[in-house]
Amino acid sequence: MCAQSINRQIILESRPLGMPTLSNFKLRESSIPEPKTGEVLINSLYLSVDPYMRGRMNDRTSYIPPFQLNQCLTGDVVGKVVQSKNDSFKSGDIVLGRLDWADYSIANGNDLQKINPNDAPIEMALGILGMPGMTAYFGLLDIGQPKTGETVVVSGAAGAVGIIVGQIAKIKGCRVVGIVGSNDKADYLTKELGFDAAVNYKNSDYVEQLKIACPQGVDVYFDNVGGDITDQVMKHINWHSRIVLCGQISMYNLESQDIGPRNFRNLIVKSALAKGFIVLLDYKERFPEGISQMAQWIKQSKMKYKESVVRGLENAPKAFIGLFTGENLGKQLVKITN
Amino acid sequence: MCAQSINRQIILESRPLGMPTLSNFKLRESSIPEPKTGEVLINSLYLSVDPYMRGRMNDRTSYIPPFQLNQCLTGDVVGKVVQSKNDSFKSGDIVLGRLDWADYSIANGNDLQKINPNDAPIEMALGILGMPGMTAYFGLLDIGQPKTGETVVVSGAAGAVGIIVGQIAKIKGCRVVGIVGSNDKADYLTKELGFDAAVNYKNSDYVEQLKIACPQGVDVYFDNVGGDITDQVMKHINWHSRIVLCGQISMYNLESQDIGPRNFRNLIVKSALAKGFIVLLDYKERFPEGISQMAQWIKQSKMKYKESVVRGLENAPKAFIGLFTGENLGKQLVKITN
Repeated sequence: MCAQSINRQIILESRPLGMPTLSNFKLRESSIPEPKTGEVLINSLYLSVDPYMRGRMNDRTSYIPPFQLNQCLTGDVVGKVVQSKNDSFKSGDIVLGRLDWADYSIANGNDLQKINPNDAPIEMALGILGMPGMTAYFGLLDIGQPKTGETVVVSGAAGAVGIIVGQIAKIKGCRVVGIVGSNDKADYLTKELGFDAAVNYKNSDYVEQLKIACPQGVDVYFDNVGGDITDQVMKHINWHSRIVLCGQISMYNLESQDIGPRNFRNLIVKSALAKGFIVLLDYKERFPEGISQMAQWIKQSKMKYKESVVRGLENAPKAFIGLFTGENLGKQLVKITN
Repeated sequence: MCAQSINRQIILESRPLGMPTLSNFKLRESSIPEPKTGEVLINSLYLSVDPYMRGRMNDRTSYIPPFQLNQCLTGDVVGKVVQSKNDSFKSGDIVLGRLDWADYSIANGNDLQKINPNDAPIEMALGILGMPGMTAYFGLLDIGQPKTGETVVVSGAAGAVGIIVGQIAKIKGCRVVGIVGSNDKADYLTKELGFDAAVNYKNSDYVEQLKIACPQGVDVYFDNVGGDITDQVMKHINWHSRIVLCGQISMYNLESQDIGPRNFRNLIVKSALAKGFIVLLDYKERFPEGISQMAQWIKQSKMKYKESVVRGLENAPKAFIGLFTGENLGKQLVKITN
């Protein structure tokens, strides 16, 4: 039934201290599991590589429990059903689920979602039509509430979420400024995606460039990054501005507490709002609305999509680490090539 | 027409560096001004002493312009019209306005509000039925959205705003915890105002006491103080909690930037909201609703009111400085005794 008899899994061998290294992960081989009644066996096609997974590598429960040592990592995976003992699924179905970082996973079907490969490339279910797309869509529109003519700044602007945030903000008639970590990424945003400006925080004149890029101040700040980058943006927020707190990737690998200027007074004198969110917990029931709108924008050529694809399960840890060094442009995926 | 011919004014002689001192202020005597057509002359009865005035003593425009050196300070004042050249006011009217810290002020009538002394003690227009009361009312109810059974923590809990926040939260059926700077204040809150707990941040076991006081975590945090006190509370915020950013009195006198743990990640993992506000700019048009409700609660004996009254215009600077050393219990007023 399966083309091979070995199942490779990515194991958390040790918890990272600070920046993860390849030695924190291990490829383990085992036999392909057998589905029980009600279960399906899934052959992985694409793994999603997401910054939030870093938090699960610490031994601390947050909104989601930590990964366990010597166990297979899990994440969003698109795969193909290869054996089904569940009446809702049949062999050949393409599905999305929170599955193993492995060639094969078992799922009970309750939290599997069928993907129609005729609608869109299947890997989009992990990006623009999946969690990152919905993060951009609901974070920007529901929390950020951008209005025509306002200035929207997004940090981590060339990442999976950032490139979508900026394009939605352009559709809504905003001035859009991206903050990125390389001049190539800046060029991509302004030349390919229609951002009004993009500044590279690694350039020595970054603080001045950011100010120049926001002559009317900042009305919406979509924050994927935190830290010093956010501190600089906070200096320019306008009256009644909205800070969409999506991620703080700059601090995920810090070994000590993240210290910086306290920002709450800024929020008071500007009568501003800062709101965090976890898209799967806060907006899951509204995903159909968001997916439908995003699909329409793609069809209308109002929205471009960008992926960075690494090939081979064995390269998933490297792709994950690359999220923190800015390797990816757009959504980072791993294509399983067994 | 006036019982005396001298008008005493409190002048900003120098801008405070850090904590204000008496030498930053001067009492200047001049002649009583003469109202022009359309103006009224007002004899001050009560001055309101408010922490936000500290910001105006710096040479920096915020949501409100800075005080000018060698000019009279201004603040909320309740006074009596003693001469009127404005058809809307007559001698003897009691009015509230943003007026001079002086025995006498001139106003053009546009931003004067008449107070009916039969409704309530006139000084309440500077406290529970005025700006501090409305700050508590709209900040807690509109931003904090407390629900029955939730835990509400308020810092600066024995101040003008804090004592009202806590009482409204009790009316709404919440567990209420106050953070204060003395054991006497803590006793007052729990024994007189019905707070469920009050902790003194100057006690050595404060961090532990705060945790014990919030066994179910914190759903609403009404922040008047900021700094370390807020950092401690942020450790206990619950999923979907609301942080009402009202004041950051701990930092108003800092000479360098306020540095501390960055709090935005906390807001993300709890899907929490932090919102600043300026009550006079955000809620002015809804004041009648708030005043009417507060007056009803006072009448129903559901709400107690507390003032600290200093006598004599010449003591206004001392009363102002006392805000930052925790001298006041409840609303700090200066009663003009000329």
